[in-house]
Amino acid sequence: MDSVLDDLVASNRVLAREGVLDGFGHVSARNPHDTKRYFISRSRSPALVERADLVELDLDDRPVRPTDAKLYAERVIHGAIYKARPDVMSICHNHAPPVVAFCAAGIDMVPVCHLGAVMGQRVPSWDSRDEFGDTDLLVSTPEQAASLAATLADNWVVAMRRHGATVVGRSVRELTFRAVHLKLNAELQLQAIQMGPLSPLTAGEIELSSRTNLSDAVVGRIWEYWTSQG
Amino acid sequence: MDSVLDDLVASNRVLAREGVLDGFGHVSARNPHDTKRYFISRSRSPALVERADLVELDLDDRPVRPTDAKLYAERVIHGAIYKARPDVMSICHNHAPPVVAFCAAGIDMVPVCHLGAVMGQRVPSWDSRDEFGDTDLLVSTPEQAASLAATLADNWVVAMRRHGATVVGRSVRELTFRAVHLKLNAELQLQAIQMGPLSPLTAGEIELSSRTNLSDAVVGRIWEYWTSQG
Amino acid sequence: MDSVLDDLVASNRVLAREGVLDGFGHVSARNPHDTKRYFISRSRSPALVERADLVELDLDDRPVRPTDAKLYAERVIHGAIYKARPDVMSICHNHAPPVVAFCAAGIDMVPVCHLGAVMGQRVPSWDSRDEFGDTDLLVSTPEQAASLAATLADNWVVAMRRHGATVVGRSVRELTFRAVHLKLNAELQLQAIQMGPLSPLTAGEIELSSRTNLSDAVVGRIWEYWTSQG
Amino acid sequence: MDSVLDDLVASNRVLAREGVLDGFGHVSARNPHDTKRYFISRSRSPALVERADLVELDLDDRPVRPTDAKLYAERVIHGAIYKARPDVMSICHNHAPPVVAFCAAGIDMVPVCHLGAVMGQRVPSWDSRDEFGDTDLLVSTPEQAASLAATLADNWVVAMRRHGATVVGRSVRELTFRAVHLKLNAELQLQAIQMGPLSPLTAGEIELSSRTNLSDAVVGRIWEYWTSQG
Repeated sequence: MDSVLDDLVASNRVLAREGVLDGFGHVSARNPHDTKRYFISRSRSPALVERADLVELDLDDRPVRPTDAKLYAERVIHGAIYKARPDVMSICHNHAPPVVAFCAAGIDMVPVCHLGAVMGQRVPSWDSRDEFGDTDLLVSTPEQAASLAATLADNWVVAMRRHGATVVGRSVRELTFRAVHLKLNAELQLQAIQMGPLSPLTAGEIELSSRTNLSDAVVGRIWEYWTSQG
Repeated sequence: MDSVLDDLVASNRVLAREGVLDGFGHVSARNPHDTKRYFISRSRSPALVERADLVELDLDDRPVRPTDAKLYAERVIHGAIYKARPDVMSICHNHAPPVVAFCAAGIDMVPVCHLGAVMGQRVPSWDSRDEFGDTDLLVSTPEQAASLAATLADNWVVAMRRHGATVVGRSVRELTFRAVHLKLNAELQLQAIQMGPLSPLTAGEIELSSRTNLSDAVVGRIWEYWTSQG
Repeated sequence: MDSVLDDLVASNRVLAREGVLDGFGHVSARNPHDTKRYFISRSRSPALVERADLVELDLDDRPVRPTDAKLYAERVIHGAIYKARPDVMSICHNHAPPVVAFCAAGIDMVPVCHLGAVMGQRVPSWDSRDEFGDTDLLVSTPEQAASLAATLADNWVVAMRRHGATVVGRSVRELTFRAVHLKLNAELQLQAIQMGPLSPLTAGEIELSSRTNLSDAVVGRIWEYWTSQG
Repeated sequence: MDSVLDDLVASNRVLAREGVLDGFGHVSARNPHDTKRYFISRSRSPALVERADLVELDLDDRPVRPTDAKLYAERVIHGAIYKARPDVMSICHNHAPPVVAFCAAGIDMVPVCHLGAVMGQRVPSWDSRDEFGDTDLLVSTPEQAASLAATLADNWVVAMRRHGATVVGRSVRELTFRAVHLKLNAELQLQAIQMGPLSPLTAGEIELSSRTNLSDAVVGRIWEYWTSQG
């Protein structure tokens, strides 16, 4: 358990330093010993999150233990996806700028290099307008969260029109790796499409690259690097 | 009062670190106890401003107490807007590079993501040439400042052609949030228009997102983050 | 010997700080006293590499001395090129983002300024698909590495489609200089082609500039700078 | 005299930190008490330059006092311009990336904001090919330097095709201000031309803005900021 909580705190810091999270966004981890519960920070900027900031919520996003802590309004994203996806053990909602640029333009993100393959075969796009009309764009009701989870389906990333992205993984480290490389791939895709037509990875390359990139050896190597950076 | 002055010093530092202000630009706060007066730094680069640098000016931009301090030439912007807009409690004039790029190109800034909604429904553009012909582009006379304030009208941001922007808020923290996210939205809009036609927020989304983003909870969360960064 | 090992450790750090290597990528140096062997770090992020992380491998990429250290999967690139190119004394495989953008777009990198001339007359491009079909894009078999080395031929850089680049040099310092300026030139080429048709260096200019840039005086000047940066 | 030497050391550091100079480039100051001589660092990366690195050269770029120090090959640029332009008291040759992008593309730099006005009415472009054919692109002979100075004529900046720029000023601080804002304006111009047709400053605006920007008050304000940054 301790290792999950340590990884969750580290992920907050790493994602902040790598430019995936800034003052906003949040990352959570499912409780491996009680899969109907998950851990997430109280409402606090990710760069500042410490172990004592973590709270445990049920899948309806209510604190398991009484608390005065203010909670993220968009925590409903986490509960809805943990309900819909038993394989998912960690979730990050973020506004990484290169990713938001694609969500603003309404252009699909696709893997243009081997590390980008971790986004998976397809990144579906969810538009709050489709079902909910004019909103503040936040996903703050269970209905909105369930709709987002349905669009995510069995993929690893869902783009959120004019807002950001929600990324999922089978562990905190896998989730962190995917969120960082989604952002890096978006930067590359933006540069590449200014030079000519895209030639993204094939379905086979995505499958094979993704498996290699998410191996313990590869994720472990960069995790050591990320967590050593002050 | 102390809290306003503390926030004003912090805003100078935050806006410098976030790349809104560099060696130039300035930020002010209206005196909440005497609304015909405002506080602003003596002429000094924002990153260096300390409490002792603050001076109090009347709405004709004259020091309330005798001082030898050199003052910003463009302080007239502040007096003119505080006169025209009783609701405005804080003002920032800046040359944030992504914002100036739009002012150089003569392209309207529009919200392309939920956080950008804080710029408001419309960002009018002021061109010093229209009334004043060839100038040094600085707003340094009461007439120029009054013209700028008239173009701002009841909006939250006025773009200044080939120069920068002036941003206003109902508090120092709201102003700071708006100035930072105006800059971030400009970066995103620039990237998005290289990929395809824009689909900005609707009027309803701007209204709703802006209200959420400027709530105490949201601004407070990122203010803690910003003021903790060295 | 010590100077080669010191330079190799320094090169890892410099290339990480200059944004050529990040958590991934690797750099090696041939043993000047036994040219059938080379030094490279155990599998570790370049920013963290210390003298004790270096291992010595033969040209079939097997450790010369028994070791428990995990090794880079793509170390086969190094052995294959050292076999094929007796003049090469140092090699770096990297995913520098501006370089990967060109590899994603399938656009040739060419020198657009005098410092970019160090990439040489031509940067051939290798596509793993041509001979090997769908893979994880890593070069991890001797056959793939030999194919890459054949495409490199007698050039100084080989672009790797949707992946990165492999850069070679006649010394660690020359290699480091070339890898950094390949990246800087890619950034400039990307900006320049957004403004108009390219007018790259002539073959004569590439030859003359490259010779000057790779002189001991020029490389020594910037090496002092790079190694002094924390 | 001391103040000139102090400013020259500070300018090396400031221009390095502001991204105008990197490992390469150089900045000099004419001796105000003997206008046939100038000060410049020995061949060293600008970020590292200290008072003890400064040497005094005559206008044929020979050391006034015997020295073993290695000198910049391109110091001939300085002597030639000091000969041709009695009003010039300080010179910087640099490869600031946004400036080199324009020199690679062959596109004229023009002021797109008030601070960019300090580049002056016109930035002529010099191409080493025109008179000297294939070279290593460095300006390393008196003939090349005289040709460059002739193209500079009575302007404040000369663009050097596929290479960089040489900037001049009437003081070290003016020169520093101009070199930094030439770079910032190039970044803005590059972004602006991706959005639509340019509308640069008029000749009158350039004249008036430049005069204001180069006043002691404005330069002094940012000089305090720049020299306070570590």
